[in-house]
Amino acid sequence: MGKENISMSVIRRMPRYYRYLCELENNGIMRVSSKELSTRMGFTASQIRQDFNCFGGFGQQGYGYPVSQLKQEISDILGLTSKRKAILLGVGNLGRALLSISFDKMGFDLCGTFDVNSRVVGTEIKGYTVLPYSDLKEFCEREKPEMAIICIPASAVSKVSDDLISYGVKAFWNFSHYDISMRHPDVCVEGVHLNDSLMTISYMLNSDEVSE
Amino acid sequence: MGKENISMSVIRRMPRYYRYLCELENNGIMRVSSKELSTRMGFTASQIRQDFNCFGGFGQQGYGYPVSQLKQEISDILGLTSKRKAILLGVGNLGRALLSISFDKMGFDLCGTFDVNSRVVGTEIKGYTVLPYSDLKEFCEREKPEMAIICIPASAVSKVSDDLISYGVKAFWNFSHYDISMRHPDVCVEGVHLNDSLMTISYMLNSDEVSE
Repeated sequence: MGKENISMSVIRRMPRYYRYLCELENNGIMRVSSKELSTRMGFTASQIRQDFNCFGGFGQQGYGYPVSQLKQEISDILGLTSKRKAILLGVGNLGRALLSISFDKMGFDLCGTFDVNSRVVGTEIKGYTVLPYSDLKEFCEREKPEMAIICIPASAVSKVSDDLISYGVKAFWNFSHYDISMRHPDVCVEGVHLNDSLMTISYMLNSDEVSE
Repeated sequence: MGKENISMSVIRRMPRYYRYLCELENNGIMRVSSKELSTRMGFTASQIRQDFNCFGGFGQQGYGYPVSQLKQEISDILGLTSKRKAILLGVGNLGRALLSISFDKMGFDLCGTFDVNSRVVGTEIKGYTVLPYSDLKEFCEREKPEMAIICIPASAVSKVSDDLISYGVKAFWNFSHYDISMRHPDVCVEGVHLNDSLMTISYMLNSDEVSE
């Protein structure tokens, strides 16, 4: 199977397939061809077949894919039922917003939220009690979270990421502007850089105008 | 210069260069070589020179780049001082969190926020008064926003994006799971799909384990 050779662009398309298949299932559709998926998703049918072949292929040629089974296969590939423990650091505006995510449907069990701000520590936000940083080490030793969601200021991330890795954390969902993968190249880091994304839109609008 | 031929991957690196140059400037550093930038950012020096050459190149060979000037050039390329009008639709958890962004530093002037929920319409959130959807058309005709931030449920996006485009909106920052670019292939859409991002982490942790 050689899963380790699957490119990140294939992997990044899998959640999108999964979402579309959930929609199809919700609409009572039992079977879908790569051609139909292609029309709905904007990838070519051959791209879709190639993507699925990376994981051994699903379904029989000419019969289309059975929706529920394909959805289940992709869910298994993505590990969506694994309930890996995760923690969230920093319950500012963005951290709070992220607490509304259905982590359990995305492969995670959010088991702890942390902040340094004494005004929020001890309070309950969306069902999660905010713990102080001073509890972090003991908490990690006991609960063994594998993933940390970083919503703290960039200046604090270098120390905190060192600590978390030493406590056994293996992956980061990084919303800060600190570049964790420069410091820890071997750790899995998925960065979401909202400012960069916004600047990209600014560029596109700007260059449209320049070229008009 | 043929700016229209610059690849999206080059463009997506520009905000990151900009961020690093701001840091250097804040630290009082006046001049930086592509080699130094390379060590800090994890790109090769030749990649950096190539990226800058897409925009005509900055600085002289062997002398390094003057930090403030380079920062200013990239700011101009990204249009960060253009103050293009933007509106935000949907002030749920995520929408609220986004209201904390310094839009003015990223090329935008957030001039209106909208929601359908009568409990929030009319209230003020972080200095923005939430307007009802019924005002959207008139507001757009008057203010002419170019960009819309979409934080509303996927089921509502097809209608709302049609409306916004007819009111002159040219770009979307899309946080919903509705695929605006499938419906409007000619419009600039920058999607931020948090669930997809989270599923990607789940995949990476899962495949690590499988291959161990």
